[in-house]
Amino acid sequence: MQKNQPQLLKGFRDFLPEEKRSRDIVMRRIIEIFERFGFEPIETPTLEYKSTIMGKYGEEADKLVYAFKDNGDRDVAMRYDQTVPTARFIANYRDKLPFPFRRYQTQNVFRADKPQKGRYREFTQCDIDIFGSTSTIADAEILACTYFAYKNIGFPNVVLRVNDRQILFDTLTPFATEKVGVFSIIQSLDKLDKMSADDVRGELQEKGLTEKQATDCLETIRCVEPSAKLEQILREAEELGVDPTALEFSPTTARGLDYYTGMIFEIIIPGFTVGSVGGGGRYDNLINDLCGVEMPAVGVAFGFDRTVEAAIEMGLINGTQTKRVLVTLFDKESETMALAIASNLRKNGIETEVYPAVEKLGKQLKYADRKKCSFAIVIGSTERENNTVVLKDLKTGEQETIPRADVIERLLR
Amino acid sequence: MQKNQPQLLKGFRDFLPEEKRSRDIVMRRIIEIFERFGFEPIETPTLEYKSTIMGKYGEEADKLVYAFKDNGDRDVAMRYDQTVPTARFIANYRDKLPFPFRRYQTQNVFRADKPQKGRYREFTQCDIDIFGSTSTIADAEILACTYFAYKNIGFPNVVLRVNDRQILFDTLTPFATEKVGVFSIIQSLDKLDKMSADDVRGELQEKGLTEKQATDCLETIRCVEPSAKLEQILREAEELGVDPTALEFSPTTARGLDYYTGMIFEIIIPGFTVGSVGGGGRYDNLINDLCGVEMPAVGVAFGFDRTVEAAIEMGLINGTQTKRVLVTLFDKESETMALAIASNLRKNGIETEVYPAVEKLGKQLKYADRKKCSFAIVIGSTERENNTVVLKDLKTGEQETIPRADVIERLLR
Repeated sequence: MQKNQPQLLKGFRDFLPEEKRSRDIVMRRIIEIFERFGFEPIETPTLEYKSTIMGKYGEEADKLVYAFKDNGDRDVAMRYDQTVPTARFIANYRDKLPFPFRRYQTQNVFRADKPQKGRYREFTQCDIDIFGSTSTIADAEILACTYFAYKNIGFPNVVLRVNDRQILFDTLTPFATEKVGVFSIIQSLDKLDKMSADDVRGELQEKGLTEKQATDCLETIRCVEPSAKLEQILREAEELGVDPTALEFSPTTARGLDYYTGMIFEIIIPGFTVGSVGGGGRYDNLINDLCGVEMPAVGVAFGFDRTVEAAIEMGLINGTQTKRVLVTLFDKESETMALAIASNLRKNGIETEVYPAVEKLGKQLKYADRKKCSFAIVIGSTERENNTVVLKDLKTGEQETIPRADVIERLLR
Repeated sequence: MQKNQPQLLKGFRDFLPEEKRSRDIVMRRIIEIFERFGFEPIETPTLEYKSTIMGKYGEEADKLVYAFKDNGDRDVAMRYDQTVPTARFIANYRDKLPFPFRRYQTQNVFRADKPQKGRYREFTQCDIDIFGSTSTIADAEILACTYFAYKNIGFPNVVLRVNDRQILFDTLTPFATEKVGVFSIIQSLDKLDKMSADDVRGELQEKGLTEKQATDCLETIRCVEPSAKLEQILREAEELGVDPTALEFSPTTARGLDYYTGMIFEIIIPGFTVGSVGGGGRYDNLINDLCGVEMPAVGVAFGFDRTVEAAIEMGLINGTQTKRVLVTLFDKESETMALAIASNLRKNGIETEVYPAVEKLGKQLKYADRKKCSFAIVIGSTERENNTVVLKDLKTGEQETIPRADVIERLLR
């Protein structure tokens, strides 16, 4: 690499063709289901007034916002998540939107976070939400849409760990002390899927509970039963087609964000080690807090990077490439025939590339290999005379001469 | 609207569902052709080092770059176009990419420009380029891919006004004076599709040519013939399937950017008044200038906003909606049946929404109307008993009672 050559900024990513294609495939499969559930796309700008963004996520998060003065001396900030701009959007276009409003949104967000494995300063969020309904069916639709989106990506199994924020509060508030608030207890219990019960007990004691209090907390949370409302949501999700074994009541699941008010859930891919790949829940007060508009809401955010990672790791993207063909240029005289054949393949929907210059055939075939083409077509003087082509299968290395008129049928087979 | 409600920044846009859907449809039709021509997607980050972006577009353009210091005191800048980051990308990953490298890229760019009708501070660029080939076939592939992309969007006609930058220079350099350089003459002649010949002559005289010199310029440029190379490119584009009437030699087309070195072209939609919807050409020196890597290139940038505008104006997006169904909730008792039917419709690929609560049927149907649903399904007590549903065609207003088992077949018809 040359010296002084411009470099990528730390914490940011380039996507090369293979990775970008995988991401696009996963995204298309997700969006297909979002639309099948009646969710509609919206888009908000990358920049907002700083005042719209800052002070909405807590003090720690505010430090991670990319904020600056623009050329017109306005204080602006880059998108930090999709929820806050959507709250503005809903407040602005209330009269134009059909409620209950179902929207999906898949845009990049920016966080000046410390870069580390799997954490980037620009990443894609992938959200659906239903605004304006307190009905349990809205919660169930979110669960069902999430389930089918992951099935549509190709995951053989997906588990939704579901809980009710209200149960957590009702059950744990008696254990809260002046020093150890109920939120702090919840945060520790949320770690039960990553830490042993003993370690969680230790953490609660460090925070200031007695050993007995900590033990009682752990016992109590394990014996909790789902609320009647949560049971109804789960039943409705099943009626919407979700496999009952994919719905797991999980009384210790808490979700990090403190704005949830009801049902909460996390998405688990069995066999994928990284833990939850996303989650969501009901948040009936947030939009009002943000924009002064009374607006119950329920939704989910897919961790797109992790989801793609899991899909690649489990081999769900392989073999999805449509049949790609390289039409080689053997000599100048075969050019007209080569271009016409390429044109005809494309008309029949086959991804086709023309190697743009006459070069050594070995070089052209190596190129076809790097581009993961399935077939190469070679036309020499014999082929021109006989109106045939050599069709080379690049996976097996086999090649055969076939009439030009048979190429399409052969490739579509 | 409430006071103090957060607002959109000037020059930026929100996209509501209908407009966003139209944009997505146009984008999918474009990308389908890009991929059919063997172009592969890449993505670069929204932020780059300021030094990568600044000083690449000229002094005037530099003023329009969104640049700032990030929290780590680094000078950073937002994507201004896709070419400069791609030049960095190619320099960085030279060894990993197959050359000639065909990539497409469809990302947003940011310009602190004065907002005006049709000009925004954030907009989508849509580019294809072939890097690493000087062959005329590469030029022809760009023309053909452009042509078929516009045909695939649905435009009945598209015209590519093609020229050769070299002809322009060779022809006009004799007319250049110390005061009026050849670039300045080209810039005036480029206006011939918007201004009368007399006005262009006037402009040239104002710039400092004599009346005779200006008249000679105009005469000469009109009599120019395409170069042998350009004729070859046009012939190859035809061999690749482009309708010959769509290829127009246009000796006055100049394209604004001064980095082109060979073939240049503009995309015209006959019947659409806004002028060119995009353009491109060959630029064999730019990547070297930017990153010190010898890399001939040819490409095109679609004006995505204008293209969408033209597609909507010409009615190419209408009627593309897949059959959308609202399953209404008539009463609490019909809920289970309603959810099961919705689940079944979705399994059959039909976009389906469940109205999440029991409310007045009129309100639910009004919602269906606002969401442009094609059908509504209503289940009352009679329907429950008879295992039928009421299927209401929302376009005609007609409704009929049909057996529940027939719903799918009926809707897929």
